[in-house]
Amino acid sequence: MQNSMNFIGRNLFDLDDYTAEEIEVILEATKVMKEINKRDYKKLPTLKGKTICTLFFENSTRTLMSFELAADRLRADLVRFSANVSSLSKGESLQDTVYTIDAMGIDLYVIRHSYPGSPQLVHKYTGKPVLNAGDGPHAHPTQALLDMFSIWERLGTLKGLKVTIVGDIAHSRVVRSNLVGLRKMGANVTVCGPKTLMPGHMEEVYGCKVEYDLKTALTDADVVMGLRMQLERQSEGLFPSLEEYSKLFTLSKETMKYAKKDALILHPGPMNRGVEILPEIADSSHSVILEQVTNGVAVRMALLFLMLGGKM
Amino acid sequence: MQNSMNFIGRNLFDLDDYTAEEIEVILEATKVMKEINKRDYKKLPTLKGKTICTLFFENSTRTLMSFELAADRLRADLVRFSANVSSLSKGESLQDTVYTIDAMGIDLYVIRHSYPGSPQLVHKYTGKPVLNAGDGPHAHPTQALLDMFSIWERLGTLKGLKVTIVGDIAHSRVVRSNLVGLRKMGANVTVCGPKTLMPGHMEEVYGCKVEYDLKTALTDADVVMGLRMQLERQSEGLFPSLEEYSKLFTLSKETMKYAKKDALILHPGPMNRGVEILPEIADSSHSVILEQVTNGVAVRMALLFLMLGGKM
Amino acid sequence: MQNSMNFIGRNLFDLDDYTAEEIEVILEATKVMKEINKRDYKKLPTLKGKTICTLFFENSTRTLMSFELAADRLRADLVRFSANVSSLSKGESLQDTVYTIDAMGIDLYVIRHSYPGSPQLVHKYTGKPVLNAGDGPHAHPTQALLDMFSIWERLGTLKGLKVTIVGDIAHSRVVRSNLVGLRKMGANVTVCGPKTLMPGHMEEVYGCKVEYDLKTALTDADVVMGLRMQLERQSEGLFPSLEEYSKLFTLSKETMKYAKKDALILHPGPMNRGVEILPEIADSSHSVILEQVTNGVAVRMALLFLMLGGKM
Repeated sequence: MQNSMNFIGRNLFDLDDYTAEEIEVILEATKVMKEINKRDYKKLPTLKGKTICTLFFENSTRTLMSFELAADRLRADLVRFSANVSSLSKGESLQDTVYTIDAMGIDLYVIRHSYPGSPQLVHKYTGKPVLNAGDGPHAHPTQALLDMFSIWERLGTLKGLKVTIVGDIAHSRVVRSNLVGLRKMGANVTVCGPKTLMPGHMEEVYGCKVEYDLKTALTDADVVMGLRMQLERQSEGLFPSLEEYSKLFTLSKETMKYAKKDALILHPGPMNRGVEILPEIADSSHSVILEQVTNGVAVRMALLFLMLGGKM
Repeated sequence: MQNSMNFIGRNLFDLDDYTAEEIEVILEATKVMKEINKRDYKKLPTLKGKTICTLFFENSTRTLMSFELAADRLRADLVRFSANVSSLSKGESLQDTVYTIDAMGIDLYVIRHSYPGSPQLVHKYTGKPVLNAGDGPHAHPTQALLDMFSIWERLGTLKGLKVTIVGDIAHSRVVRSNLVGLRKMGANVTVCGPKTLMPGHMEEVYGCKVEYDLKTALTDADVVMGLRMQLERQSEGLFPSLEEYSKLFTLSKETMKYAKKDALILHPGPMNRGVEILPEIADSSHSVILEQVTNGVAVRMALLFLMLGGKM
Repeated sequence: MQNSMNFIGRNLFDLDDYTAEEIEVILEATKVMKEINKRDYKKLPTLKGKTICTLFFENSTRTLMSFELAADRLRADLVRFSANVSSLSKGESLQDTVYTIDAMGIDLYVIRHSYPGSPQLVHKYTGKPVLNAGDGPHAHPTQALLDMFSIWERLGTLKGLKVTIVGDIAHSRVVRSNLVGLRKMGANVTVCGPKTLMPGHMEEVYGCKVEYDLKTALTDADVVMGLRMQLERQSEGLFPSLEEYSKLFTLSKETMKYAKKDALILHPGPMNRGVEILPEIADSSHSVILEQVTNGVAVRMALLFLMLGGKM
């Protein structure tokens, strides 16, 4: 694998900044990393002497573990900084915190923060490549890339596929990044959910279709992605009850009949089984939900490799 | 040292599943690891490229540090997952959590959990070798192995020894694993404690002797193991007062006179000095309490080495 | 670089125990480490197989990250123990905790604790070299060394310089260690702050000058060090208001006019911008505040290297 010089030192704020060709390179690199992760000796010690810092201002066990494993397998050093936003604001600004950490000699940042645009700020403060691991409701590009890889690997392409995303579209950074990436790769995306959880102008902004009826949305879908229903939205009055949500929008054998026979099932996890998805679908042979997690480590290895100029 | 193929991929739920011969192999391997830990260069880099995951659902600084050092010295990668059981149950089942972590590419699990049988579940979910680091009141086999090693190394054998265990027998996973292991190796075990902290049918189930009088229990003992008195048992009404417990069951110069002159003193730690054991005994020349900790790192290295197919 | 045998196995409780010549060796070693940290491959894998334990009884993200990076870059293993003093006292004594950890095979300790003298205790319990990372209000020698290095590197010497330290002198371990170290290296130190935050007998004990007027204190200074104002001192009645403190003691363009034209600005961080220092000074071209952080990693690498007998 050639490490195109194009990637070295670049940021990944979201997928807007990457061309379809560049995304293809990332998917190809992910494939190589996935092979390495299947070996008995799961190492590609190409980032020795590089220091990666994870800046996590929101809790996230699984994303952090995934990045930690990715760094370990490339033999980069990883230091972790975690804080909640409130404790930070008490003492020191994000700016002073980042300046201080950067002065210790960091080569790349991975940041998760509840404020959209914080990855851009970290890059502005440090000049170092920054990988967005989720910035509020805005973007979550590594999740989108692992979703896209999971489809691409199974179906050979993303071009011309009908991908239907079901759930709380309004609050999901996963959806936003997927819309950008999938559209770029030529997929046709339909989003579906309750009106109270659907932002306006989705068609104009993202070039996707909007449906409020699940069966219509699923009809002829090649790929179906369920989203985690944040149970706290209920108390905000955005949907009346889990029973009603579930009755209208759950992915079940019954509703999945409308999709194509072999339609792939994705979900970013963690799942609320029985709410947005039934076990009969989550655990079916067409589900790639656990493969998404496996692919997540590989896609993060690929990105660290490309952005830090790793060599094969 | 030959790595018997017998161990590769096996679990360690408790010592029941291991023969006396196999336990002997573990003790021999521990001896080798202990030598490595005495060197200036404390490394046997045989597990490079392997990934170990610690799943800790109960707090445990010292056991976790011991496993972490063991993994470091064999150069395995270690990722940590920790949660308390309640926060887990809120979101996701143990099953989905373990499936997700396993999809990241784990070679072996170390689990501590308050529910007996959880190590078996993790193995069932993943098919990977699982090392039980304590499952509720049920078993704690790495503690028993380090206890057994500490005796075996000092006295040359376990066969025919009289081992007396004193304290809260009812709530101790350490006792249960030791009973299984020590009996298997031919030791004669006596358990001693207040009636309220002594389960019924110990003789039938474990082939040990039960005594309620400390002096009788200690008479002619080759090895005496004190247990940590969980102070919260008092509020549960299981013993009247620390003073009374201490008067009847503390290991002191006075009571240790009944044991053999050179009887070894063990305690799994952390100690309540002045309750179950007096400093004059804890710090005496026959105490191997700190050596137990040293041996704990070595026994965990030996197990990881054997179960993951390390090579010398 | 030669690793003088003088350092191997020694403690760093404070700078009292080191001669000016030895401090010079540490500064020279720091220079070498700083060069390594500028490389693409930031590693000097000389401490492989060594185990460092950080014992942190007070929270400290930045100091801990700095030590962690230092250990990583020398390829030592690092295990972390953290606890707050209250939870420790509940269960087990510091002594039993340290004995237990030491039994796992530790080569060097880094300790931060609110009780002055705890590093000495850890050394007494273990016989291992101990690096004081802050013991209550007493000492913080690695901070002082990085401060001294930051001056020495920029100005070529410490001898004969006028160094003015401004702020809460009474509660600062940073000041105490700097006074010892700077005086040893021939600098002339002036301390300045409100009377309520100034201990008695500073001149006699530390051979420094005491001033209560900022402008007088700053006059002709080569180096000016601001200290973090602990905002909780206000509720203790030690200073009337932030406004008043700031009016009298803040480092600003206005007050810095009294210092030499090119006077260096230091601050141990984190800063309260607008209280003890204004952004116009903190971010000026004479500020070495971020360089101090960079130098902190290098000085910690140098100390670990020297105390553990690393080789070039």
